[in-house]
Amino acid sequence: MALVVEKTTSGREYKVKDMTQADFGHLEIPAINVNDSVTKSKFDNLYGCRHSLPDGLMRATDVMIAGKVAVVAGYGDVGKGCAAALKQAGARVIVTEIDPICALQALMEGLQVQTLEDAVSEADIFVTTTGNKDIIMVDHMRKMKNNAIISNIGHFDNEIDMHGLETYPGVKRITIKPQTDRWVFPDTNSGIIVLAEGRLMNLGCATGHPSFVMSCSFTNQVIAQLELWKEKGSGKYEKKVYVLPKHLDEKVAALHLGKLGARLTKLRKDQSDYISIPIEGPYKPAHYRY
Amino acid sequence: MALVVEKTTSGREYKVKDMTQADFGHLEIPAINVNDSVTKSKFDNLYGCRHSLPDGLMRATDVMIAGKVAVVAGYGDVGKGCAAALKQAGARVIVTEIDPICALQALMEGLQVQTLEDAVSEADIFVTTTGNKDIIMVDHMRKMKNNAIISNIGHFDNEIDMHGLETYPGVKRITIKPQTDRWVFPDTNSGIIVLAEGRLMNLGCATGHPSFVMSCSFTNQVIAQLELWKEKGSGKYEKKVYVLPKHLDEKVAALHLGKLGARLTKLRKDQSDYISIPIEGPYKPAHYRY
Amino acid sequence: MALVVEKTTSGREYKVKDMTQADFGHLEIPAINVNDSVTKSKFDNLYGCRHSLPDGLMRATDVMIAGKVAVVAGYGDVGKGCAAALKQAGARVIVTEIDPICALQALMEGLQVQTLEDAVSEADIFVTTTGNKDIIMVDHMRKMKNNAIISNIGHFDNEIDMHGLETYPGVKRITIKPQTDRWVFPDTNSGIIVLAEGRLMNLGCATGHPSFVMSCSFTNQVIAQLELWKEKGSGKYEKKVYVLPKHLDEKVAALHLGKLGARLTKLRKDQSDYISIPIEGPYKPAHYRY
Amino acid sequence: MALVVEKTTSGREYKVKDMTQADFGHLEIPAINVNDSVTKSKFDNLYGCRHSLPDGLMRATDVMIAGKVAVVAGYGDVGKGCAAALKQAGARVIVTEIDPICALQALMEGLQVQTLEDAVSEADIFVTTTGNKDIIMVDHMRKMKNNAIISNIGHFDNEIDMHGLETYPGVKRITIKPQTDRWVFPDTNSGIIVLAEGRLMNLGCATGHPSFVMSCSFTNQVIAQLELWKEKGSGKYEKKVYVLPKHLDEKVAALHLGKLGARLTKLRKDQSDYISIPIEGPYKPAHYRY
Repeated sequence: MALVVEKTTSGREYKVKDMTQADFGHLEIPAINVNDSVTKSKFDNLYGCRHSLPDGLMRATDVMIAGKVAVVAGYGDVGKGCAAALKQAGARVIVTEIDPICALQALMEGLQVQTLEDAVSEADIFVTTTGNKDIIMVDHMRKMKNNAIISNIGHFDNEIDMHGLETYPGVKRITIKPQTDRWVFPDTNSGIIVLAEGRLMNLGCATGHPSFVMSCSFTNQVIAQLELWKEKGSGKYEKKVYVLPKHLDEKVAALHLGKLGARLTKLRKDQSDYISIPIEGPYKPAHYRY
Repeated sequence: MALVVEKTTSGREYKVKDMTQADFGHLEIPAINVNDSVTKSKFDNLYGCRHSLPDGLMRATDVMIAGKVAVVAGYGDVGKGCAAALKQAGARVIVTEIDPICALQALMEGLQVQTLEDAVSEADIFVTTTGNKDIIMVDHMRKMKNNAIISNIGHFDNEIDMHGLETYPGVKRITIKPQTDRWVFPDTNSGIIVLAEGRLMNLGCATGHPSFVMSCSFTNQVIAQLELWKEKGSGKYEKKVYVLPKHLDEKVAALHLGKLGARLTKLRKDQSDYISIPIEGPYKPAHYRY
Repeated sequence: MALVVEKTTSGREYKVKDMTQADFGHLEIPAINVNDSVTKSKFDNLYGCRHSLPDGLMRATDVMIAGKVAVVAGYGDVGKGCAAALKQAGARVIVTEIDPICALQALMEGLQVQTLEDAVSEADIFVTTTGNKDIIMVDHMRKMKNNAIISNIGHFDNEIDMHGLETYPGVKRITIKPQTDRWVFPDTNSGIIVLAEGRLMNLGCATGHPSFVMSCSFTNQVIAQLELWKEKGSGKYEKKVYVLPKHLDEKVAALHLGKLGARLTKLRKDQSDYISIPIEGPYKPAHYRY
Repeated sequence: MALVVEKTTSGREYKVKDMTQADFGHLEIPAINVNDSVTKSKFDNLYGCRHSLPDGLMRATDVMIAGKVAVVAGYGDVGKGCAAALKQAGARVIVTEIDPICALQALMEGLQVQTLEDAVSEADIFVTTTGNKDIIMVDHMRKMKNNAIISNIGHFDNEIDMHGLETYPGVKRITIKPQTDRWVFPDTNSGIIVLAEGRLMNLGCATGHPSFVMSCSFTNQVIAQLELWKEKGSGKYEKKVYVLPKHLDEKVAALHLGKLGARLTKLRKDQSDYISIPIEGPYKPAHYRY
């Protein structure tokens, strides 16, 4: 019997790493972590959110994104997708990051890297994508512009301090429509708009990722299960957590090219020999970053 | 004494992998492969080429990029940078790829994925970025539009079949200026423009990468040498090839943030505990793809 | 009493021109055509559609735009907005045009300019923005890929040959949800998705333009009405159709800058003299194209 | 004998307007102002500068544009091209404007609109495109970061206060290479880089616009001369300054489509009747803004 771990809470890579490297002596069966497939993490997280973040924003608020200042907390795959979508829609995007490499990537795309404290009172739209907790606290919210929009597309609803907001003395919640609430602070009479009660806004306010990108994710899961089933007696997989083998990751991508009218180039034998890559792949080493 | 391997020929990841995994019993000293640092491969290769490809094209040919059809052979880091630059300058970009994952990435950016044979007679600009040999052959060149521009920014000059071109019966070479040659085929009287004699066009026709991105690459080398020197007696490094430890890769990035006015966010203790990431980093597992 | 003409059917500029130039001796009152204000035509049509086209597509179909081939018929202000939105979302965009100037503009943005016949069987998404009739005929629809999406954001529902579709022998209409129908051809058993029954898809499938851009349009109307009222006895306006005076067009824009945190520069007296432009504007001549 | 006015100093539209509207009784011959052709002002100024601004920057300084903060003074056609090029290359762009409509356009593209005073000490690259004088004064320069780059692509060298700089007490000029000077202030020992001595940097530091866009401009001139010659005895043109007739402006564009592989759509007779536009054009009214 096969177990497949589907892990979608971005930013928690360390736990995944712990799992893949630890001795899972207590694991009863082998498992494949498909969240770390390229065709999952770089597709679902990046391209999926690039689509579904503006979708959620528009369905929930009908706000014009062009001309606005948006803060994206976190610039991992999810944050990259969100920042790209907002920038392309005409917003000016400010990124917050703890990781200097991701921060430098944001800068290379023309995005400003600031702390939340720097930007809190000038931004119109806030999106959390960190996979960490307590990113936007109620004290931040009180300093925001009237009708600033706060949403989370990272992991749990604790990226936004919903508890602090709900228990703020005298705060008033006005439900504009399901999944879209305006919260008014008594002292300033100024309000903020919170999407999906702080939970994943693309699920709460839109319909999640589009089917094409989910097809990549689900194909990962099915192919992983088939692989575990096929190899169930071979001893290829011990009772550990693996990432999907590269050639299967590539197969997931290959299965989706036809729909988009792409035509792949074939390696010739002499080219294959020259770069020591098999004609049928895998074409990249495990650590390749895409 | 420390050895640092600086490897810049993109696309040859397999050989790097071989080196890092093989038993380098014959290696006299430990070594660090800085080519696979994030702040090298994702910066020098990607952002460097995004800058220096159009720079080389403009200096060599003064051609207007907007409105042209450009073929980028290969969509690794170098190809991604080149395709982004050409698209942003207003070209319509067609990508050729052997790797279905990279091909799908190109499609997600709105690029067309075709074979060279499909596109050879409609494109105005060709760029090779594959790290493989014999990508554009003399038979391709003969089918190109008059004054199509051919350039290589991948690795050696064998990405372009210079030998086939030079020995083509009756072909005529007209040097427009140093590093920019027009080659005329006797049968069609039609010519192509070859940059930098098929060698790296950003070096041959422009001044290579800008100093900021090279600073990232050189900082990698210096930090690697310092690390090897510091640990020379500690036994931390055996006589193998290593990648730069993640915290040093992050340090390279951190050293470059101030120049660009960025302000990093600091993890709080409770946040650090929550995601099991040290406050001072490293912030990502080794396999993280950025 | 004031009459304000609000004209929103893009592409019909000729009729507007006829009106503004003709002797409207039969007009009982002066009128201002605010559709030709810059802050209407270049904002509502361009930025409004850039926002509401993907909004409508996503709400109606949840289709992933990235990787798809999209045909935009017409590259006026509406078409420019639609093409920009689709390109930015990761589609490959093909433009159809009758006007060589607009066609050349499309090319300068890296878009392909083809006829509908060239592209009909390879595209996934079709958008009409022409202001003309009979752009996508039922014969085109029959050649489209299965589940190609057809929508109109131009003017009336006659841009798409709804009559031809509805009366096609044996065609079957399957309503997926209100404003989203799949039409299946009996001979091929292949279907197309028609949005909003061929009417304006941003109104039918989403909520139209966002409030910020509509505020620009409505401010035009109000300011035009105030101007006509103020000048009702002055003889400034005869019984003709006028465009909004430039200084009022600029006032519309100025009223919207504060919301977006912009800070305008002031001309100094000597600069004003140097370029013969009043310090308070208007800053451009009537024919300026922005 | 024909006179053709070629006017390239952007931002001076008022003077052009004066000329086209004034009674040029003293004009000995009819003239056509081709600067206001769409295929000149919207092509040469916009797309030309989008190409030649980064070209000039890279040739003069080899500076990495990605990650930098750039100030573009003026957001007319030239400014729009410059801002687009800098943004696409990965800079964060701040626009200064006096005209609220152009300012709002900048905001809609995600650019920040500030005064020069706001941005002077945080920017790395300054570009003047205003067509006005005294935009960047020596007092601004003294507040800039060390090695900030100052360049003008607008009109005369008085957009930048070269006189103030040259006569600043104790200032030291270090010529890095022709057309690239570092000026060091004695009090701060900090220096700025001035390109092309404040004159047009794309001409001084690069080779000006690429031939394709100049071909549009020159075709305008030739067609204007042919038109004046053809009509020299017909009385069509009085001794005034005209803009190029729309159908000739469209002809300029049409002549450039083939090179880029475009295929135009033809109006059908019934479509032509429906929108009252001749099959052969002109397709837009004179005031259309493109």
